[in-house]
Amino acid sequence: MSHSIIFDTDPGVDDAQAIAIALRHPEIELLGLTTTYGNVDVTTATHNALLLAQLAGRDDVPVAQGAAGPLVKARHPAPAHIHGANGLGDIDLPEVTGRADPRSAAQFIVDTVDERPGEVTLVAVGPVGNLAAALQLDPTLIDKVKRVVIMGGSIREGGNVTPVAEANMFNDPDAASRVLTAGWPLTLVGLDVTHRCVLSESHMARIAAGQGELGRVLADSYAFYRDFYREFLGIDGCCPHDSCALAWLLRPELFTTAPGHLNVVTRGEAEGQTVFAPEGRTFIAPRWSQTPLVEACLEVDGDAVVEWIADTLA
Amino acid sequence: MSHSIIFDTDPGVDDAQAIAIALRHPEIELLGLTTTYGNVDVTTATHNALLLAQLAGRDDVPVAQGAAGPLVKARHPAPAHIHGANGLGDIDLPEVTGRADPRSAAQFIVDTVDERPGEVTLVAVGPVGNLAAALQLDPTLIDKVKRVVIMGGSIREGGNVTPVAEANMFNDPDAASRVLTAGWPLTLVGLDVTHRCVLSESHMARIAAGQGELGRVLADSYAFYRDFYREFLGIDGCCPHDSCALAWLLRPELFTTAPGHLNVVTRGEAEGQTVFAPEGRTFIAPRWSQTPLVEACLEVDGDAVVEWIADTLA
Repeated sequence: MSHSIIFDTDPGVDDAQAIAIALRHPEIELLGLTTTYGNVDVTTATHNALLLAQLAGRDDVPVAQGAAGPLVKARHPAPAHIHGANGLGDIDLPEVTGRADPRSAAQFIVDTVDERPGEVTLVAVGPVGNLAAALQLDPTLIDKVKRVVIMGGSIREGGNVTPVAEANMFNDPDAASRVLTAGWPLTLVGLDVTHRCVLSESHMARIAAGQGELGRVLADSYAFYRDFYREFLGIDGCCPHDSCALAWLLRPELFTTAPGHLNVVTRGEAEGQTVFAPEGRTFIAPRWSQTPLVEACLEVDGDAVVEWIADTLA
Repeated sequence: MSHSIIFDTDPGVDDAQAIAIALRHPEIELLGLTTTYGNVDVTTATHNALLLAQLAGRDDVPVAQGAAGPLVKARHPAPAHIHGANGLGDIDLPEVTGRADPRSAAQFIVDTVDERPGEVTLVAVGPVGNLAAALQLDPTLIDKVKRVVIMGGSIREGGNVTPVAEANMFNDPDAASRVLTAGWPLTLVGLDVTHRCVLSESHMARIAAGQGELGRVLADSYAFYRDFYREFLGIDGCCPHDSCALAWLLRPELFTTAPGHLNVVTRGEAEGQTVFAPEGRTFIAPRWSQTPLVEACLEVDGDAVVEWIADTLA
């Protein structure tokens, strides 16, 4: 089965790998890349999206630029020590020859879904402001998309930028609240599963060998990202967060999901936290179970996912 | 080593067992019971505390009544389906002959600690409003107590009354925020460990046989509590939450703890959540690591804890 997707992204080292999968995988029809601030500024994100498509020989894929900052809160500076100032590990990069689509990311999403109602899956792996903006332009989008897959949040795993919040949700909790409770078919691929997937140097060597110049960019930027994992998290390897969203889409049998109700905390010490009430579980009051049902990934065969990533790009 | 403690409680079935341990254990000097609303109304809590001391032949132990409701928020009704309307599984109970101390729980705590500075450990197993009120009366209490042990909160385990909040913290999050960030030596014994401890029917049979009339009350009330666990949580047995606080005090080697900074969420969807930032862990901003260091229990040898409880009361 083939999946027609719009990939919303803030590349970003792990985004770059996921973009490469989206560009290369025979079962994915990539309708466009939409960009957001997050790991980097939005202009850098757009530059990198154009570059990665170009390196894959796919400059036919539209790139539409979106959110430069959060919907409501002040923006937190991008973490240059994780992805590098250029988002790709501060390695030297070739010139970009293509240009972005003139439409905003939100308008691009609305137009593209309108052309193929019921067929398009939105895969978002950064702060989800573009999806919130698309819902603002057209609230009926919830009935027109096939599915929404979000890389973000954490149910039981704790956070990565605060004790309880995952970075994408923390970066724009108001957008996350809008998007995760909109009432469209949605799957959350969060830290509970992405932290179980660890790509090693040997996986990256296979990817580098299989992708020419694109492979070199992926592998060299990965080396920078790996230093962060080693120094700050004590892990030898990297979690391919964003690729996990595509892994769920194409290989859902590797994941265990549960239906439930999500709320996103928008203020206070738990800002950005995804609060998940499993379907049917009774709490002291109904308020945690009143948002539309979504699906959250809780467990994964992490070894199989990283093998799938390496096989896809080797 | 002997521990001189004030036991702050809202009995409650699992409280009753913990009170029995506090009354019986040769290494515990029980200076008094202070009562709060929580599992039951505060007058019921006081009644039950007096009754349990009487049944143990220990009506010399003072009982001082405290909080009838939260510090700030409106009170949530007590969950009669868990502990019964009388807090002890709605079993028939003997007449109480003793009377409560005329002082408030908070005043009793302040006076008792003042008499023996540096020697008294506060063990609180309900909503912690009495400790917050004691700090209001005497903020220097933080330098006079030996230690504070709190049964409550959850670091990674999720909540039991909301998806993220444990009942004691949810019942009075403002008091919890005051108490958990006060800057006194504090250990949090939360769901991360209490959910690993499951008392079986055979453990309770041993306790019933070992404690005469007190044993009958503990065992019969436990049967009611067990029905709740079976029906709502699918567990055959009960978690002896409150006894775990005493188990940590007397058998700390059965627990794994970590130092860190706690914040308690007081408003919004995560109300009552304990947000724990491990010492030395860097987050996106320093705000989660600015409260005084405390110690949180993260793991436990649950089988050894329930054996210790049964051995203590058999």
